Amino acid sequence: MDNKSYLVKMNGNGVCGKSTLNGKSLSGNAVNGNGLGHVTTNGSSYPAKVAKSRRLKWEVKPSEMANNTLNPIRSIVDEMKLTPNPDKPMIALSIGDPTVFGNLPTDDSVLQAMKDAIDSHKYNGYAPSVGYVKSREAVANFYSCPEAPLEAEDVILTSGCSHAIDLAISVLCNPGDNILVPRPGFSLYKTLAVSMGIKVKFYDLLPEKEWEVDLQHMESLIDESTSCLIVTNPSNPCGSVFSKDHLQKILKVASRHRVPILADEIYSDMVLPGCSSPSMASLSSDVPIMSCGGLAKRWLVPGWRMGWVLIHDRNNVFGSAIRQGLVKLSQRILGACSLVQGALEGILNNTPQSFYSNTISLLKTNSEICFNELSSVPGLNPVRTSGAMYLMVGIDLDHFPGFENDVDFTERMVTEQSVFCLPTSAFEFPNFFRVVLTVPEQMMVEACVRIRQFCLCHYQHHSRHGNQLDQ
Amino acid sequence: MDNKSYLVKMNGNGVCGKSTLNGKSLSGNAVNGNGLGHVTTNGSSYPAKVAKSRRLKWEVKPSEMANNTLNPIRSIVDEMKLTPNPDKPMIALSIGDPTVFGNLPTDDSVLQAMKDAIDSHKYNGYAPSVGYVKSREAVANFYSCPEAPLEAEDVILTSGCSHAIDLAISVLCNPGDNILVPRPGFSLYKTLAVSMGIKVKFYDLLPEKEWEVDLQHMESLIDESTSCLIVTNPSNPCGSVFSKDHLQKILKVASRHRVPILADEIYSDMVLPGCSSPSMASLSSDVPIMSCGGLAKRWLVPGWRMGWVLIHDRNNVFGSAIRQGLVKLSQRILGACSLVQGALEGILNNTPQSFYSNTISLLKTNSEICFNELSSVPGLNPVRTSGAMYLMVGIDLDHFPGFENDVDFTERMVTEQSVFCLPTSAFEFPNFFRVVLTVPEQMMVEACVRIRQFCLCHYQHHSRHGNQLDQ
Repeated sequence: MDNKSYLVKMNGNGVCGKSTLNGKSLSGNAVNGNGLGHVTTNGSSYPAKVAKSRRLKWEVKPSEMANNTLNPIRSIVDEMKLTPNPDKPMIALSIGDPTVFGNLPTDDSVLQAMKDAIDSHKYNGYAPSVGYVKSREAVANFYSCPEAPLEAEDVILTSGCSHAIDLAISVLCNPGDNILVPRPGFSLYKTLAVSMGIKVKFYDLLPEKEWEVDLQHMESLIDESTSCLIVTNPSNPCGSVFSKDHLQKILKVASRHRVPILADEIYSDMVLPGCSSPSMASLSSDVPIMSCGGLAKRWLVPGWRMGWVLIHDRNNVFGSAIRQGLVKLSQRILGACSLVQGALEGILNNTPQSFYSNTISLLKTNSEICFNELSSVPGLNPVRTSGAMYLMVGIDLDHFPGFENDVDFTERMVTEQSVFCLPTSAFEFPNFFRVVLTVPEQMMVEACVRIRQFCLCHYQHHSRHGNQLDQ
Repeated sequence: MDNKSYLVKMNGNGVCGKSTLNGKSLSGNAVNGNGLGHVTTNGSSYPAKVAKSRRLKWEVKPSEMANNTLNPIRSIVDEMKLTPNPDKPMIALSIGDPTVFGNLPTDDSVLQAMKDAIDSHKYNGYAPSVGYVKSREAVANFYSCPEAPLEAEDVILTSGCSHAIDLAISVLCNPGDNILVPRPGFSLYKTLAVSMGIKVKFYDLLPEKEWEVDLQHMESLIDESTSCLIVTNPSNPCGSVFSKDHLQKILKVASRHRVPILADEIYSDMVLPGCSSPSMASLSSDVPIMSCGGLAKRWLVPGWRMGWVLIHDRNNVFGSAIRQGLVKLSQRILGACSLVQGALEGILNNTPQSFYSNTISLLKTNSEICFNELSSVPGLNPVRTSGAMYLMVGIDLDHFPGFENDVDFTERMVTEQSVFCLPTSAFEFPNFFRVVLTVPEQMMVEACVRIRQFCLCHYQHHSRHGNQLDQ
């Protein structure tokens, strides 16, 4: 809509047009007053409108969008009665924030880069809505590889990875479209989509195959209104990392159906030794991909809200239209804090390798403790982790007749053992709980001891269906 | 929508339900594999869907929302041929960013507060989506007054004032509603509203009355679908400040029609000596108001993206529904950088009064230079400034027959004099240009000299309608 269509609409409503809107008549009245030639209209032009619009009482309601912005984690957790056992200090293994326990500080070079940005006095003004060119270039250089080259113009800086995901979904999808989302999966995809009238279809991840995608199920969900396939790798909440072979199979599905991919790669490179997590773009020759990432997890500063969209076009499918769409959407609220943008080059280039490997080393230790300890707990089925910072534990509810579901189970674990793990109903997948692995090692050990105690206390050899499995 | 409605929908589409979705049958299959009991479905269940959904070629188009996100400043400026005169250094009086000339650095205490936040190591993790309580409290204390008291819970921290405006519009308006917006006015209101399918009605500001609202015009535009009245005070682009009396008249209109107000008060307290700008909320006893503000202008750090919504409810009209709506919407992308949030208390409490008055003093000097110099330029009609950081200059186009409109006029001023002022078509109001007053004093003087030269060169005593006005 251009300006004129508005004006026509307003005049069409019976509202007096103002002479100030018309360049010629405005200046034609230049002798009036201060030469601005505004013609004052008296009140009598408007009485009908005024009477018609008068509301009898105040009634201000939240919009549909606000009502439809649902956060399943919040709605589940807020309903839980989380009263820890007063005799045991609380251990919260629920929050996907690696900074809360103080054992994983970010690197000094990261903090120094921020101070340098402050001292430079160069980063207090508005950055372009897509970010400073130099900062975009730094991200492009960091992630570029021969199979998926990147330049500054392929990078859009955002207010955290959430904003990156928001932009990618917003540019690809219209109300009524559907997107494919992993189950279990990060809840924000659905939160954003539903608030915009976009439908969500969940494709299954298979715990018995280390959370690989059920490809047939995924493919069966695609229809002519599918505008985007979201792939999270490494996975929150699963802690899994797809093999190159599996990623290629996912790409083949997208290719067959011509569905672009939103690759949520915020945990890229957070993989345990022996694993690797190639970016989806590096494996695609025909599927256009937007990869969303940020500083949050790998650099351990999630609060800084520094994210990005990496545009990996293929055969000009996205073309300039999608790129321009992203630029336009970025102008709605502007992007990341200019100081963090200013620090970005230093952060990406000066963080020592030892910092990254320290994090991985802690994750590996805790993942082994957690998996090994919980594997021998009756009624629990932990799934081995390969990356990100989580481990999923299946609950064999048939043997815990005292609990109705995962929410009930984890709630009572707080009451009795002061250990809180997120029930995976929050990820559209019941009967598991998610363990966050970034806690101090001793806390991980203590948590496992308490979880074992809890299960031993409630486990029943007889399943609730009367079968005695250990006969 | 809860999880179940999705599942029903998916099953209704003929997609095979997975046993993993059902707690009981999941654990009932616990003897399979690793005890997770997923029943693998073979490919033959899905052939019809696969055939139906196959697209023949790639076709990825930007969404309606992206297409409808229009930035009038960009679309006008991008179309202009801005080729400065190579003999004169460029003076850009177009950018509403007080930091670009280096003459208005932020205060050292502001930078120190940021460094303290970094050194504390306390602000790297996720903040709550509405901001840290302590930071919200600091804002509440800073803006609270007896007539409009504020507590932490009345403050929502956002990623810049743009995000604050986005949240306020998003929570109050549905597609098809309309909002009332000042003309001339800040273009973002329309950009955001139109992208969400919300209609925009412009109410006139009167240049001959120092940009007061044409109240009758405003009132005439209100109808039963008007969900929000936006008032910008002090004004961008006008540089005007409404009197207390005028604000009360605006409030009366809102009160009569029960329309809540979005008060864009980002320039609050940026007023010239002798003026005052009470907040709208301090004058309202019955109109609920959301006041949007931030650090950008007064503390001269627009790039830091630190904004806020102040909720001033009256008689529980907003109530918990609107508050909860804002909280939900804040969870979409989370808010401001945690470090800036951490610094907020120090910034608000420790910035010396002299810093604020230095800024005001520069604005006063430049506003006087600009007004006085341009008042005596033939064909120009500057309007005196009271606040914010702008001054509007009317162009008497009848006497500049060489130019079609304000865009043409300002474009040629760049070509000939290397002075760039924004044509006010960008603010839905033609035949003015906006001067940014935050430049160094000498640059302001030089710009005025060049603007005079330009006008003298193109001014015609005979108006284009043939009247000789000076006879």
